[in-house]
Amino acid sequence: MSERLIVIGGCAAGMSAASKARRLNSDLEIVVYEKTGFVSYGECGLPYYISGIVDDHHKLVVRTPAQFARQDIEVHLHHEVTEIIPENHLLRVRNLEDGSSRDESYDKLIIATGGRPALLPGFSPGELGGVFVLRALEDGIAIREFIQRERPKRAVIVGAGYIGLETAESFHLLGLETTVIGRPPQVLKRFDPDMAKLVQDELERQGIRLSLGDEVKALEGNAQGRVQRVVSSKGTFEADLVLLALGVRPNMALAQAAGVALGETGAIATDARMRTNLPGIFAAGDCAEAHHRITGRGAYIPLGTTANKQGRVAGTIAGGGQAEFKGIVGTAITKVFDLYAALTGLSEKEAQALGYAVKSTLIKAGSRAHYYPDGRPMYVKLVVEEGSGRLLGGQIVGGEGAGPRIDVLATALHKGMTVEELSELDLAYVPPMSPVWDPLLVAANVALKATSL
Amino acid sequence: MSERLIVIGGCAAGMSAASKARRLNSDLEIVVYEKTGFVSYGECGLPYYISGIVDDHHKLVVRTPAQFARQDIEVHLHHEVTEIIPENHLLRVRNLEDGSSRDESYDKLIIATGGRPALLPGFSPGELGGVFVLRALEDGIAIREFIQRERPKRAVIVGAGYIGLETAESFHLLGLETTVIGRPPQVLKRFDPDMAKLVQDELERQGIRLSLGDEVKALEGNAQGRVQRVVSSKGTFEADLVLLALGVRPNMALAQAAGVALGETGAIATDARMRTNLPGIFAAGDCAEAHHRITGRGAYIPLGTTANKQGRVAGTIAGGGQAEFKGIVGTAITKVFDLYAALTGLSEKEAQALGYAVKSTLIKAGSRAHYYPDGRPMYVKLVVEEGSGRLLGGQIVGGEGAGPRIDVLATALHKGMTVEELSELDLAYVPPMSPVWDPLLVAANVALKATSL
Repeated sequence: MSERLIVIGGCAAGMSAASKARRLNSDLEIVVYEKTGFVSYGECGLPYYISGIVDDHHKLVVRTPAQFARQDIEVHLHHEVTEIIPENHLLRVRNLEDGSSRDESYDKLIIATGGRPALLPGFSPGELGGVFVLRALEDGIAIREFIQRERPKRAVIVGAGYIGLETAESFHLLGLETTVIGRPPQVLKRFDPDMAKLVQDELERQGIRLSLGDEVKALEGNAQGRVQRVVSSKGTFEADLVLLALGVRPNMALAQAAGVALGETGAIATDARMRTNLPGIFAAGDCAEAHHRITGRGAYIPLGTTANKQGRVAGTIAGGGQAEFKGIVGTAITKVFDLYAALTGLSEKEAQALGYAVKSTLIKAGSRAHYYPDGRPMYVKLVVEEGSGRLLGGQIVGGEGAGPRIDVLATALHKGMTVEELSELDLAYVPPMSPVWDPLLVAANVALKATSL
Repeated sequence: MSERLIVIGGCAAGMSAASKARRLNSDLEIVVYEKTGFVSYGECGLPYYISGIVDDHHKLVVRTPAQFARQDIEVHLHHEVTEIIPENHLLRVRNLEDGSSRDESYDKLIIATGGRPALLPGFSPGELGGVFVLRALEDGIAIREFIQRERPKRAVIVGAGYIGLETAESFHLLGLETTVIGRPPQVLKRFDPDMAKLVQDELERQGIRLSLGDEVKALEGNAQGRVQRVVSSKGTFEADLVLLALGVRPNMALAQAAGVALGETGAIATDARMRTNLPGIFAAGDCAEAHHRITGRGAYIPLGTTANKQGRVAGTIAGGGQAEFKGIVGTAITKVFDLYAALTGLSEKEAQALGYAVKSTLIKAGSRAHYYPDGRPMYVKLVVEEGSGRLLGGQIVGGEGAGPRIDVLATALHKGMTVEELSELDLAYVPPMSPVWDPLLVAANVALKATSL
C-alpha cells in the first residue's frame, strides 16, 4: 500500500508542498484539508481585488481543486483538522458543511495552517457588522460585497502595516474617506522612522488620514449592530467600514496541542528540511518560523515568498527528495500608491536592538539620468556594521525601480558583502532606468565614506 | 611649488578623475585638455537628445567649465594633446581654435582620451553630406540640426549595437523610415541569438526594417555630395541620412606613441590603480581596458559606468589617496522601445568560446502576479558552468523590471554564486512588481534542475 501524505491547509505553503511531493513521487497518496472554500490563491492580491484592479476573485486562484485532482491530489474544502494524534499517526477531521467528524491516518503530515489576523483585545469578530479582517479569499469577497451593497462613505483601518496600507489605497480608490490608525508612531513598523516618514507623506498627500501613535479603545455600533465609529486615545472616527489589520499571528495551536515544539518567536520550529520535533511531521508557511541568515536566529516574517519556498522544501522531503530551506534575510516590499517601500536585512533600530554597532546612511538619488524626463526620487538607506563594514540591511523608498533594487541588497546580504564590495558592483545603466551612478552605488559610496572615518 | 596634474579628455572618466583628485587634494594644480567644445556630459543621452526626449543639449551637461573653474579645475576646450613626452614629463598641446601649439609640463598625467567610432573601411567621414557618427555632443547636435533643417525621410543605420538601436528608435519617433544594417546575423552581438531575436522581433513590430548578416559595400551620393543610398551585399537602401554606428575603438594612439603599453584587447593596459606602465601616467575610461572578474582577463567593454569608476580611482590615486578598480563583470543594458535588453557576465557563446562547459536555460515569466493587470513577459537566460553549478552569466529581455533584475545577477557574479545559491535568494514580492516566484528564482530553479541531471 502506498504511503499517505496529508497536508493541513491549502494556501501557498500547503499546495506548493502537495504539488512538489506529487512531482517527485507518483506513488504517494496526497490529501489536503482546507477549512475555507478555496485553495491555492494569491492572498497578497486581496487588496487589489477589493479595489477592482483585479476584477474577478477567480483570477486570484492559481489552481482549483479540480486541477489538483488531475494531478492526483485530493483536496477537501471546508474541512478542518481539529486534532493531531501523533502517537497513532491520526488526524481528527471535521467536515464543516455537515458538522461530522472522522479520523484519518497519515504516514507523513505537513502542517501548513498559515497565519491568523491579530485581533483587538476585548473585541470579537462578528460582534459588529461592517467590521472585517482581510486574510482569506472569503474575507476579500465579503469586503467587496459589503462595499458594493452598502456604499460606505468612511473607512477606518486599524493597523498601518502592509495589508493596512495597501487596503487603505484600495478604499481610497473606491472613493471612501479613509483613516488609518496605528499604535506605533510610524507606519510599517519594521522600517526605520526616517524611511516610514516618506511613506506617511505619500499617504497624506494622496488624502489618507493617519492617526499614528494612537490606540483604539472601542468600536461603537448603532442599534442595528453596525459599526458607527472608532474611539481611540486620540479621538473619535466616524466609520461605516472598519478593517482590522493588526498583523498576522502563526496558527500553531493545533500543532502545539499535539506536542509540536514552537520556536522563540512562538511559531512552529523546524529544521532546514522543514521537519518539526515530531517524526513524520513537517511545518511550512505562515505557521512556521524561518531561520534568519543575518541574526542566525528564528524569525517570524510571514510572507508568500517564504511560504512557497518552505512548502516546496517540505514537499520535496515528504516526497522522498533532498532539499533545504536555508532561510531568509528579511526582504519585504509594499506598494503605496506609486511609491514602493522595500527593506531587507536589519533596519537600523533592529540592528541596534540586537546589539550591533552600526552606522546608517540615507541618500536621495534620481531614478533616471538627470536629463531624462520624469525621473523620480529614490531614497536608499544602508545599515552597516562598524568595524567590519559588513552590510546588515537596506531600505529603499521610491517609484519605478525601487523594488527590484532591494533584491540587489538582499543578494549582497546572502553573501555577507561589505559596503566596499557593494560600491564595486558592475551595475547596469541606461538613461531611462538609472543615473550613471546607480542609487545603490551612490549609497554604497556614501556608506563607505561614513564607515571609513 | 604645487604638483601639476594634467587630464587629457574631459568626458566621464576625465572629469571624474579631475573632480575626485580635487576633493582629495586642494594643493594640486589640475588642468584638463578637451578637444571638443564640451566636457562632462552624458554621452549615453545623445540618442534621446536626437529624438527630442531631451529637449536641450545643455541638459546633458553635468558641469560646465565655469563650474569646474569654481572647483579650481582649469578646463581648456578645443585643445588637443598631440604628443606625450614622458622622459621630460611634457605634453605638446594644440589650440584648435588658433592652430598654435605649446608644451606643457605635468607631474601626473591621466589619459582619458575615450573611444572613437569605428568607421567603414575605405570611407572617410565627411566624404558625403548626411553621413554621421554619434560619439561627441557635437555629433548629436549636428544630427538633430540636420534633421530639423533637411527633413530627411529615410534613414539607414549601419550597425546594430546599443547606439545603433537606440538611435533607430529616435529616428523612428521622429517619423523617419528607418533601416538598420548589421554585419552579424543578429542585433546586439554580445547577446546570444535567442535573446537578440526577442529584440529583433520588437524592432520589426515597431516598424524598423532590419537587414542582418549584411555588409555595406558603398555609400552613394548625389551630385551635391549628399548621401542618397547605401549599397549592401543584400540590396540597396535609399537614404537621406546615414548613421555609422559600428562600435567604439579605444583612442590609444597618442598613448601608444609615447610608449604606454596596450593590453590584449588593444586598449591601454593598467593595474587596479589605473596606472599604466609609465611612471606618473594613468589611464581611465573608454581608452583603457578593464579587468574582467569572470574571465580574469582584460576586456574592452567601453561604458559610462566603468569610465566613471575608473576615473574616480585614477583621480584618487593621482590625488594621493588609496583606491582600486577591481574590474567589471560585463554588465550592459539597452532600451529598445519598451523593451529592455540586459546582460551580465558571459553569454553562452562567449563562455563556450572561452572553453567553459556550460548549460544554458531560458525561461519566460511574467513581470507581475498572474492576476495583476498589464504584466509583461520577461525572458531570463542563465549560463551555468557544468559541474560546479557556478553562474557565469545572465541575460534578461523584458519590459518593466527587467533592467534592475540584471543587477541581481551581476551581484551574484561578483560573489561567484552558484545557481543553487541563486535559487535560495530572499527576493522581494508585491503583486504589481513580480510574481510570487520572481522570474530570477524561476530561472534559477530551472537552471538548477538542468545542471543537477
